[in-house]
This record gives sequence, C-alpha cells and structure tokens, in this order.
Amino acid sequence: MITRMSTLFLRTLREDPADAEVPSHKLLVRAGYVRRVAPGIYSWLPLGLRVLRNIERIVREEMDAIGAQEIHLPALLPKEPYEQTNRWTEYGPNMFRLKDRKGGDYLLGPTHEELFAQTVKGEYNSYRDFPVILYQIQTKYRDEERPRAGILRGREFVMKDSYSFDLDDEGLGESYRRHREAYIRLFDRVGLRYVIVAAESGAMGGSASEEFLAESTTGEDTFVRSTESGFAANVEAVVTPAPEPKPIEDLPAAEVHHTPDTPTIETLVDFLNASEMGRTFTAADTLKNVLVKTRQPGTREWELLGVGVPGDREVDIKRLEAALGPAEVALLEEADFADNPFLAKGYIGPKSLQDNGVRYLVDPRVVTGTAWVTGADKTDHHVVDLVCGRDFTPDGTVEAADVREGDPSPDGQGTLEAARGIEIGHIFQLGRKYTDAISLDALGQDGKPQRVTMGSYGVGVSRLIAAIAEQSHDELGLCWPREVAPADVHVVIAGKDDSVRDGAERIAAELDEAGVRVILDDRGVSPGVKFADAELVGVPTILVVGKGLAKGVVEVKDRATGERTEVAADSAVGHLVGLVRG
Amino acid sequence: MITRMSTLFLRTLREDPADAEVPSHKLLVRAGYVRRVAPGIYSWLPLGLRVLRNIERIVREEMDAIGAQEIHLPALLPKEPYEQTNRWTEYGPNMFRLKDRKGGDYLLGPTHEELFAQTVKGEYNSYRDFPVILYQIQTKYRDEERPRAGILRGREFVMKDSYSFDLDDEGLGESYRRHREAYIRLFDRVGLRYVIVAAESGAMGGSASEEFLAESTTGEDTFVRSTESGFAANVEAVVTPAPEPKPIEDLPAAEVHHTPDTPTIETLVDFLNASEMGRTFTAADTLKNVLVKTRQPGTREWELLGVGVPGDREVDIKRLEAALGPAEVALLEEADFADNPFLAKGYIGPKSLQDNGVRYLVDPRVVTGTAWVTGADKTDHHVVDLVCGRDFTPDGTVEAADVREGDPSPDGQGTLEAARGIEIGHIFQLGRKYTDAISLDALGQDGKPQRVTMGSYGVGVSRLIAAIAEQSHDELGLCWPREVAPADVHVVIAGKDDSVRDGAERIAAELDEAGVRVILDDRGVSPGVKFADAELVGVPTILVVGKGLAKGVVEVKDRATGERTEVAADSAVGHLVGLVRG
Repeated sequence: MITRMSTLFLRTLREDPADAEVPSHKLLVRAGYVRRVAPGIYSWLPLGLRVLRNIERIVREEMDAIGAQEIHLPALLPKEPYEQTNRWTEYGPNMFRLKDRKGGDYLLGPTHEELFAQTVKGEYNSYRDFPVILYQIQTKYRDEERPRAGILRGREFVMKDSYSFDLDDEGLGESYRRHREAYIRLFDRVGLRYVIVAAESGAMGGSASEEFLAESTTGEDTFVRSTESGFAANVEAVVTPAPEPKPIEDLPAAEVHHTPDTPTIETLVDFLNASEMGRTFTAADTLKNVLVKTRQPGTREWELLGVGVPGDREVDIKRLEAALGPAEVALLEEADFADNPFLAKGYIGPKSLQDNGVRYLVDPRVVTGTAWVTGADKTDHHVVDLVCGRDFTPDGTVEAADVREGDPSPDGQGTLEAARGIEIGHIFQLGRKYTDAISLDALGQDGKPQRVTMGSYGVGVSRLIAAIAEQSHDELGLCWPREVAPADVHVVIAGKDDSVRDGAERIAAELDEAGVRVILDDRGVSPGVKFADAELVGVPTILVVGKGLAKGVVEVKDRATGERTEVAADSAVGHLVGLVRG
Repeated sequence: MITRMSTLFLRTLREDPADAEVPSHKLLVRAGYVRRVAPGIYSWLPLGLRVLRNIERIVREEMDAIGAQEIHLPALLPKEPYEQTNRWTEYGPNMFRLKDRKGGDYLLGPTHEELFAQTVKGEYNSYRDFPVILYQIQTKYRDEERPRAGILRGREFVMKDSYSFDLDDEGLGESYRRHREAYIRLFDRVGLRYVIVAAESGAMGGSASEEFLAESTTGEDTFVRSTESGFAANVEAVVTPAPEPKPIEDLPAAEVHHTPDTPTIETLVDFLNASEMGRTFTAADTLKNVLVKTRQPGTREWELLGVGVPGDREVDIKRLEAALGPAEVALLEEADFADNPFLAKGYIGPKSLQDNGVRYLVDPRVVTGTAWVTGADKTDHHVVDLVCGRDFTPDGTVEAADVREGDPSPDGQGTLEAARGIEIGHIFQLGRKYTDAISLDALGQDGKPQRVTMGSYGVGVSRLIAAIAEQSHDELGLCWPREVAPADVHVVIAGKDDSVRDGAERIAAELDEAGVRVILDDRGVSPGVKFADAELVGVPTILVVGKGLAKGVVEVKDRATGERTEVAADSAVGHLVGLVRG
C-alpha cells in the first residue's frame, strides 16, 4: 500500500515544541510521530505507530529465536500477588494504584515478575516442564516523578518483558546467556551504538545483572568505560583494583600528634604540612573513617559500620549501598553519636571502632603495608604512620569510594572515563526471590519439590525509538535505520506537470508492487515544503521526481549521508529495490 | 515454525472451571487459551494470543481497506477531556478512575471519542483535511458490575474503535456505510452467524446506529426478528405498524358508566362483561393511560406526559425512554398526584389531561376511528366507545407499548420472535455531540468555520473470540474457522515407533516449509490423550500419523465435521496444503 501524504494523518511542525529539550523529543513531535496527551503520556500517530510495530516485530523475532513463548498478561492487576512479594508497598509512589467499584485494590503493572511466576505455577509442576521462557510485549505504567523527554521516560510505555524459569543456577545462567545474545542481535539490528554494563539490580533483588545502554549525551544513566578496552560498567559496579601488599618491616612506628581544630581532611593536611615534621602530606595519605549504620532486610536493629577510604576520596553512598545490599544503609544521626560516646567525631580511628565491636571495612587500596594518617579516637588528635596489617587489621574491604575519570580501568587497560547512556535493556538473574514468595516448585525426578529459579529481562520498546532518534538524526530531521523506518522510499513529486506526477505515480506503483514500502508526497504544496518534510520524516531513501524526468532521470538521495545520485528513470525501480533489499 | 506440544506453554484441563457457565468460557479455559487473573481480567496464553492476533490482523485489513488510518492513543487518560463532555460523571461506576502521585485525576479509557476528536483538532483545521477515519486496536477498561462468561464481558478487553470525521451529514452517512460494509466483510471472514439490528445509541448520544449481534443463546442482548424476512432489531428500535384509520360515522356515541372498584384493566374487563351491556370486552378494547414525567437535558423542570396504550399491553419503560431520548423519563410519585388533583388515579382519561395542558401521546395502534373503553377522569367511572379522532385527538404517537413474540414484523413480513445475541460490533452516527464540546471546526472554502460531524464504530476484538467459540464448538472442544485458528494442522504422532515419529516429523517439516502453521504433538503421552487434546484445542485439520504409516497411509480428520479420510503418506503434504489454501 502506498502512503499518500495528501491523506496521511500527519501535520509536521516547523517549530520545536516548547516542552522539548532533547533532539528525539523535538523531532518525533515535529515530524508527527507522537503527540503529548498528559505528562509522560503520548499518542502514537501513523508514522510513529509503524516504527513501534517494526521494533515490536524485531523484538518478537529475536525472542522467538531463543525459544521464548509469547503470552499476554493483564495490565490491570489485583494487589494480592504484589503483596506477597511486598512490592505493593516497596514500589512506592511509582506505582499507579486504584480501586474498583467494589473497593478492591488494583494496580497498573509496572513489571510482571509476580504474575508470570503465578502463571507458571498455574500450569507447570514437574521437572520435565522446565526450563521455560515466557515473554510479552505490553503497555506498562510507572508514575514517574519526573517524566522526561517525550517517550524517553514516559508514564505509559511499551515494554518487552520476559521471564525465565529454570530448575537450577546453571539453567538460569543459560537462559540469561541466551537473552544476552538475543539482545545483542536485536540492538545490532536496530542500528544502535550501545554498551553492556555490569549493573546493580536495585529494587528488583537478585544477583547477576547487566544493562544495555545506548550511548547518548542526553541519556539519564551515567556509566564509566575504559579509554582503551571495551570495559564499561555502572559506577556502582566498578571494582577498584587493589595494589600489591607492601613490606611492613622498615616503616616508621605510628605516632599520635596533637592536631588542634583539624576535623576535616583539608584542615588536617594543612596543619601537618605547616608543622615541622619535615614531610609533605596530601589528602591521599590520610585515611578517612566514615560511620554509617546498616540493617539486614526483615530485621529492625541497626548496626554501626565503619568505612575507611583514602582522604582524597568521598564515600559514594550509592556504591556503598550496592556493595552492602540487600542490607539498608543510613547515615548516623546526632543521637547515634550520643549513644556511642567512643566515637570522637572528626577524629575517629580504626582502633576504638574495633575495640567497641564495630565492623570496619576499608577501600581496596588500603592494603597491608600502607601507612596512613588517621583519627586517634580523641578530639584534636591524629595518628601518623598507622600501618595496615601492623597497627590495624580491617574486617574486610568494601567498594565505597567514589569513582573518578582517570582511575585505572578494572580490567587493567587504560583509565576510566565517564559517559552517559539511555537504558534500553536490562537482564537480571533474579534467583528465587519471587518463586520463594509463592512457593513455585517443580517436582524433581526424585519426587522431591525443587524451588524454581527465575530471570527477568526487559527491553524498553517505545524508549528504543527515542534512543534510535537520539543517535540517528541531524539538524534537518530524523534518519531512521532501514529496518525500523516507517517506509523504505519517500517519493517527492517535485513539479506540477502531469508528466512528472504520472511518472512519480508509476514508479511508486511499481515499487509498491515489488514490496517496497512507499510514502508518496502527492500534495499540492511547493517542492521546498516537500523536501523539508522528507528530511524531517527521515525515511532512509528519498526519490525526487522532477524536471529531470523530461530527460529521463530522477534523483535518489540517501537521507543519512546526504549523497545524491542521478538515476535513469527507467531503472529507478530496480535501483531502489536493490537499495532496500541491501 | 512448528509448535511442539512437548514444549508449548499449555496444560489442558479435563474439568470445566468452577466459575464457568457458558461453553466458550469452559472451553477457552480447558483448552488453555486464557486464564483468569481477577474478575473480568484474563491472561492470554500462547494459543489464545495467536487467535487474538489473527482477529486483530483481519480487523486491521478490513479497516485499512476502507482507508482508515491506524493510530494508538493512551489507555491512561487525564480527566479534562471527559469533563468537557460530561462523561467523567455520566459514565458512573463503570469507569475506572485513579489519581497520580500529584493528585491529578485520571481514568482508564472505556472508549475514546473525546481523545480522537482532540487529536484531530490538534492536526487538522481546513475543509481540505476532511474526511478522515482513524482507528486503534487497544486494551480498554470498564469496571463492569457483573463481569461475565470469561472474556465475553471482561473488565480489561481488546477493542477496535474507530472514529470518522466529516464536514457534513452526507459525508458521515458515507463513512457509516463504509464501516457497515467493512464489518460485514470482517464478521463474514471470521465465520460468524450474526444479525444487524437497528439499535438505540444509549449513553453515547447521536442518531443512526446499528448493532452487530452474533447469534447465541448465551448472549446477553435480546432482540427480535421476523420469522420470515431478514428483519432484526433491538426491542427499543421496533416500530409498531399502524393500522389504517377507520370510518367514524356509524360508531355509537361515547357513554360514561359507573364502574365501581375497577382501577385495573382486569377488574374493569370483568366488571364490563358481568354487566348487562350485551357486549364482550377484552383488555385489547381498553385504553390504558399511564402518566410519567419527562425533563429535557440541561433543564430542571419536569413536565407531565400521558401515554395511552392498548390495555393488553404494558408500557416498556426502556422503549419509552428510547422514544423520548435525550429527554429523561421518570415515574410519578405520590406528590405528583397531590400536586395535580385532576388526575383521577386508576380512572384517567384523555380529556382531563388535555384540558389541563398535559401532552398526550398514544400507541400507533390508536388510530382515527378506533373506539376504546378508558378512564372517565372520575373515580369509579369509565367511558365506553370513546372514539379516537371524534372524542379525543392525541398529540402524537409514541413507541411505548411492549413488544411481544407473535407481533407483526414492522416490515410486513411474518411475525416477530425473540432471540439472543452477543454484541460484537456497533456503529453510530454520533453527529456533533463531541465536536461541539471541544469546538472542532474546519475552515470552510468560504473562510467560515464549519462544525465537524463524527461517527464512532466499535468491534469487540477479544469478545469476538468468545462469540466464535460459542458458535463453533461441540462436546469435544473448540472448532475454529481456519482464518482465526491458532494453527492450520494439528499433527498427532500416534505411535512409539521411530518410523512413525520420523514420518510425522518429516511431514510436519514439509508443511512448515510450505507455509502451513503446524502444531506437532510430540509428547510422550498416550494417543488417546493426544486425540482428546487435539479435539479440545480445535485446529481445523487433524493429521494422525500412526500404524497406518507402515502401509503408507495417514489419516486426515476434519475437526468440525468429524469426517476422516485416509491419504497416502506421500501425498499428505500436498493434500493438506490444498485444504489450507482452500
């Protein structure tokens, strides 16, 4: 079917929408792909819907290829399954909740772990039934605090979510690997530049997880990558390379110094360098001890925890939380200091912590044989040359220090640099969190029930469109990769003569006949308007049928490169079919 | 792709689900097409989803064929557009309402007239832009008081809704006609027996409307149809054939009789027949005058209305409401009688009504020259031989009397009989109700704004599946028409020999190669279990590969007719491809 611009439900805009900041948002609105209905809630107009369907088809093909089976669960869900896993409350205000006419509690599904687990439990019960991977492509709902950038972070959006169910960890690993490969093929097919970063799983719980981030300066997700290797990771997942331990023998003895009014690293370093010790200190020579409290899930008691990091680093609370998860982490309040008078605020050292039974974890750089200036557990006093492995022995290491550009890459190649991306996919090894909640078991070969283990895998289908638009556009408009484009060829009738019109119609009809998806601009507007709209809409190939037709030529323009080629009108169809078929 | 029963996410059930009453519900659950999640909320398992997608594809093809353009609007909608048309309140408890984290009011779209009108207003503004037909296939929400029969009346369901926008009534008529024809093609393609009934448009407002009802004894909608012609209508839309007026000249004069204690038709007829008038009366000879009050929309004052129907009929309040719409109708309260002392309760006649300015409408059977026994406006008194057109002249006629089986068909052919059906489609000429609410105008050729007129057209996509299942099943299971079936051929491996298995695998592979959709039952269960599941699942053609293969034959069974044919194994693929291609 030929799509005629004269009747297509499309009005392009010359001006950027007032609320749009990022290119994909501006262009998808200007080119008439989407329209805003409410914050984070958009309508898909015909061209947008076509791109969405193309992406859905590609996702479906790649999921089917790994043996996943498509089903479709409701979006309107009863509270009960989400109560069993505690997510009814844990999800907080991000979940849309509502009541039905009888007062029953419902929610609009933000993700469907509970329901898939329940669905599998409803059908399967033997070890012979497993493994199974189920997926759906579905409209999902999250009441984002700050919906953003059009369809990039919406409150109603389309997602592919799949869930694997395996009998053991090895099976889960295999299901995870198959998803990882399917995602790589999928994101390659839609023409994205992306990285796979080691991730923390956050509120979802679970163990291994990776995120697929489309590279984009407008992305919300930050990550670090090596300047030299392919290494990339969420900041939360960066592992600090530990130096080799050093010999202790020749190090000077630890010595307590009176260091009045030096509760901060800066004041301490200034004081030391102004004193007559004959040595120069930097912040990196000091060991900063930060006190927090932690609590294991399901318990009520908080425990103190000391964290030692080099004084030139800050404690990154998100990294600390990721490292200690699933335990909660909180900063100390005044009352905590009052309850623990051994804490000499500003002058805390390892000794009194450990003497008082407080667990003490240090940055991986604090290895045996390193000497530090640190608190002497007494106001206005510090100890110099406190040597790890001689004067104190930490209870372990923890990834708590902030990660900085220029830090060595964990894989030993190059240094880290910061980058931004758009999360387009996420794969998780959930483990048994959800199957435990509903006792999803398979009867084993030995007749004993075996708890099933689960993975959860998501692709932001509608968000992918924004990510592609972020990467594939120029100042004139969108430039779709062919497989997701709303059409293959955009035919512009650039002339009023009947012969030009007839020629264009004939070529369009032949292309259509050959299975090429054609947009035909048959409107009674100027060629300039048509060219501008063709660039804005972003179909990969533009065919201009104009005056040249009298001389037997038409012009083929590559939207992305801008390259123009004159082609004999007679061979235009063959030429274009060749381009489309690749 | 061959669907293997050994891995398909499907477990059939031998027992009917406890909550199921109608065949489609029982069988769709037993055959593993759908699963209940909450009242009126269902999951689609793999086979169900395939049928749903097939129906969606057919709907899409027929909509595209009439030039309709597909878009996709949100399901989560802000209150404001629905407030403008008053439906936010009018819709009552059937609408799911919710608040977002900021306290904003939202709803889950039950139907999208407002949003489509708003969308068109956002893009179009000139007469040159029209007409346009837009549609979507979308998950919709209605908080039904009594969700029923599985997916037949759900609270979350899939609907195709389309909306036409025209410059004038003639254009609207044409858009309506095109939808009507598309629906006929569509319902024919999915193999349904259905009727098109004249309908009242109910809460939607508007003028012309018809419903498509799939014939089914389990349907919720009642309608009447002619025993002889193709006439069918909702009871509300039945027009009573009026007899010819009769000559007045020779009729006896009206005479008031003392008829003590005869406030009902029954007591009146008994009294008259027991009196010595020398004539026999039936209820059909009496004229029952029922008083109601009506109020025009947007006004606060009620007006009295007298309705005269033959005494052997009841006033059907729904028919009366439909006839008087959009005015409201209410029964009188005691206070109304007290306020209007001329109303002699049980003895009301036309005279005092009209003398006191009360509008008086009669059944179409009350024509000039008919003589009636009716109230004499005085307790315990009736008048006999009150002749229409001589002694009283009604202010008009009204369709208020109940419709009964055996009544003459309005088209003059045969009599009416009652039937039940499932509403599968509905087409409305809405007119300007919604475009008035948001001032949707097109700038005319004369430079003047022209109010656009609108039509609304729905197909219950998920409900269609239940309707087809109601019509196409037997005691063994479902019997899908080919175009909606989840597969074309269900291959049963009926034997344990490797040769049988290999033969079946080879045939399945060749069918798949030829584009035939195959389910292959490769499970390690008995042939009996496989046969039962094949019948239950309801794929149109079942191929049994068993012992006969040694002799070079396989068996082809037509699921619907039960007919079995032996076919040479070598020519089975060709035979089946022929069946599938029709």
